[in-house]
Amino acid sequence: MNNTQTETATAIGQYMTNVGQRARAASRIIGRADTRAKDAALLAIAAALETAEERLIAANRLDMDAGRAAGLEPALLDRLELTVKGVKAMAQGLREVAAQTDPIGEITDLKYRPSGIQVGRMRVPLGVIGIIYESRPNVTADAAALCLKAGNAAILRGGSEALHSNQAIAACIQQGLAAAGLPADTVQVIETTDRAAVGELVRMAEYVDVLVPRGGKSLIERISREARVPVIKHLDGVCHVYIDEFADPEKAIKIAYNAKTQRYGTCNTMETLLIQERMAAGLLPVLGAMYAEAGVELRGCSQTRDLLPGIKAATEDDWYAEYLAPILAVRVVKDMDEAMQHIATYGSAHTDAIVTEDYSRARRFLREVDSSSVMVNASTRFADGGEYGLGAEIGISTDKLHARGPVGVEGLTTLKFVVLGDGQIRQ
Amino acid sequence: MNNTQTETATAIGQYMTNVGQRARAASRIIGRADTRAKDAALLAIAAALETAEERLIAANRLDMDAGRAAGLEPALLDRLELTVKGVKAMAQGLREVAAQTDPIGEITDLKYRPSGIQVGRMRVPLGVIGIIYESRPNVTADAAALCLKAGNAAILRGGSEALHSNQAIAACIQQGLAAAGLPADTVQVIETTDRAAVGELVRMAEYVDVLVPRGGKSLIERISREARVPVIKHLDGVCHVYIDEFADPEKAIKIAYNAKTQRYGTCNTMETLLIQERMAAGLLPVLGAMYAEAGVELRGCSQTRDLLPGIKAATEDDWYAEYLAPILAVRVVKDMDEAMQHIATYGSAHTDAIVTEDYSRARRFLREVDSSSVMVNASTRFADGGEYGLGAEIGISTDKLHARGPVGVEGLTTLKFVVLGDGQIRQ
Repeated sequence: MNNTQTETATAIGQYMTNVGQRARAASRIIGRADTRAKDAALLAIAAALETAEERLIAANRLDMDAGRAAGLEPALLDRLELTVKGVKAMAQGLREVAAQTDPIGEITDLKYRPSGIQVGRMRVPLGVIGIIYESRPNVTADAAALCLKAGNAAILRGGSEALHSNQAIAACIQQGLAAAGLPADTVQVIETTDRAAVGELVRMAEYVDVLVPRGGKSLIERISREARVPVIKHLDGVCHVYIDEFADPEKAIKIAYNAKTQRYGTCNTMETLLIQERMAAGLLPVLGAMYAEAGVELRGCSQTRDLLPGIKAATEDDWYAEYLAPILAVRVVKDMDEAMQHIATYGSAHTDAIVTEDYSRARRFLREVDSSSVMVNASTRFADGGEYGLGAEIGISTDKLHARGPVGVEGLTTLKFVVLGDGQIRQ
Repeated sequence: MNNTQTETATAIGQYMTNVGQRARAASRIIGRADTRAKDAALLAIAAALETAEERLIAANRLDMDAGRAAGLEPALLDRLELTVKGVKAMAQGLREVAAQTDPIGEITDLKYRPSGIQVGRMRVPLGVIGIIYESRPNVTADAAALCLKAGNAAILRGGSEALHSNQAIAACIQQGLAAAGLPADTVQVIETTDRAAVGELVRMAEYVDVLVPRGGKSLIERISREARVPVIKHLDGVCHVYIDEFADPEKAIKIAYNAKTQRYGTCNTMETLLIQERMAAGLLPVLGAMYAEAGVELRGCSQTRDLLPGIKAATEDDWYAEYLAPILAVRVVKDMDEAMQHIATYGSAHTDAIVTEDYSRARRFLREVDSSSVMVNASTRFADGGEYGLGAEIGISTDKLHARGPVGVEGLTTLKFVVLGDGQIRQ
């Protein structure tokens, strides 16, 4: 590094340390804020966003123009864009989070022990949450809302391509916090687009309790590698539907079609269809025609290709692939054991479904498939915080520890033990 | 590295990869083993340990002799020693774990959603647990039991000083697993004492789901630094008792005495006593005499030293200290806010207690003190899996994520979402 670079690095280090210290101090206040104040802030932010609609869209236009000039891909521009509908959806999301029950302070399982003490667990905030995300500006409002509801301070680091949008949203958040008398530092949006800021953020273990990166796999892998702070990760969604020998054919077709085609770019979209061999002859030609109609490219095993001549052969890579696109791998299997073996070998432990009317197989599949969501006779597309009733979600965790599957407000909290006594001492 | 070192490193790498692969394969079988088989194995291991009592003690004698010859500290030798009573305690511990309810497969919160699907959560094993520990051979049996009950495979790496003891216990575990028809690889005890094996273990993220290091702070810090696998950590226990202005003096004296003197070397022992200034004049002389009698050295703030002339002055370092010894820091505070501020600044978020008869202060202390265990009118020494009713414990977590406080069988499990449908698709 030359002198100027060293100076910049030092300046960013100091800036981030300051952000961290302020977040930690704010977390102590928001952690004990009462439900009424937190909900008032959420509703005030929602109102501020709606009032600022024009300003938000103007700020977003600056980002969109810069993005087009920089030659961003259409998919990225699509995620970056903030429309009138998008602003309304953000406000609505905040109101939904406000309407949820406050999880903080709930005491469960409070029981007397032989010693005479009562032992229970109280739900408490994690402290300071760092969110690192790309493009979508609505994450700024959504993440702030979930962190706030759970009594946490948040440090938000959005993509540089969304800087103007994020700052405009941040101004509304500040307005809402002030209206409710909560500290401004409860939600801080990092103002520098320097990548070094992320490097600092992921290492500030004394100021940040957990990181939630939201974005592509490469972002998440990089952050996990560098982080000294625990990370709630969301890696691949290589989701399967297995059509069992005892599936109801109508349900099987409906689910296999919906799980692939309802949306292509989402993590809970089916990427591989597994079908029991006695079902294949009847169902694959029907499904093949439907997928062809929808423009879905199929890649199959040899038995699949016997039934659907002309489709591409699936390679080993296809079984591992998260296409996020209108492509589907199809494999004919001998039985449920072979299907579960395939899922264990190639899957990403995200969401996997069986279609069957057989009680014992449903029961076994539910227990034995080691994925964050396991389904019977339902589309994998249901794996979503909203559909599960968690309210908003901050992401879907593919980790096993702490939070697994869709992560809502509860995933941003932890449990401490509380002990009530009357002078008890240990013998 | 020279050639021989390179060859050794490669050999250990291959050995550990093989251990990891076998553990992963075994985890699939033990994960779906029924309750009866797991409990039968636990009881068979208990019986095998009792039958092998003489062999275990003979093996332990080899370790003790080697330890003495190597000049191990008395405290370490004390932890290493396996007595007849110790063997009985291991067997008893296994029987207690067997008697606990099997947590695996329990479905909670199964609710209908507007879409018609039912969504709930099923408790499932984590997969493969790596335990790295020092000296105490009983950890081999305790850790194996907890992992097995929770449906996990375990890779155990004990201290080199306990190698013979651990291998003798491992033989009993193998006997019990075989008797119950469970795979031998469910519990693997690492046979090499080469440190490189630990280096491999903590990086095998594809084969190991979580690490639980048990030992001194330096071991845990080193492992946390090197690990690529999530770690359930247990760092300092700088525990406080705060005697409030509205404390019952009798309870205050009993608790403050017990929390310090019942055992000195445990993480839930009080290290700093905080006392409200109007209580100090009456209570500190009484407590001071009791501590002196017990041989506890006091180090106090200036107000404490006015009341207890002759004691050492506490330095800033004393407020941070985890003595694990008959030493106690004492500070007089103005009020509960100052006490909570002290705990937030100097504490380790392990276990903190208030002694008070004031309802509102008890309520505030419980909510606002951010520690894994927060107590009212009870000795900090109660922070323990057994006292809390968790059965055995694998450790006490000072992390906030996943498991906080004493970690029993439940801490070695996770929750997955289960979805039951009837052909539902996403609209």
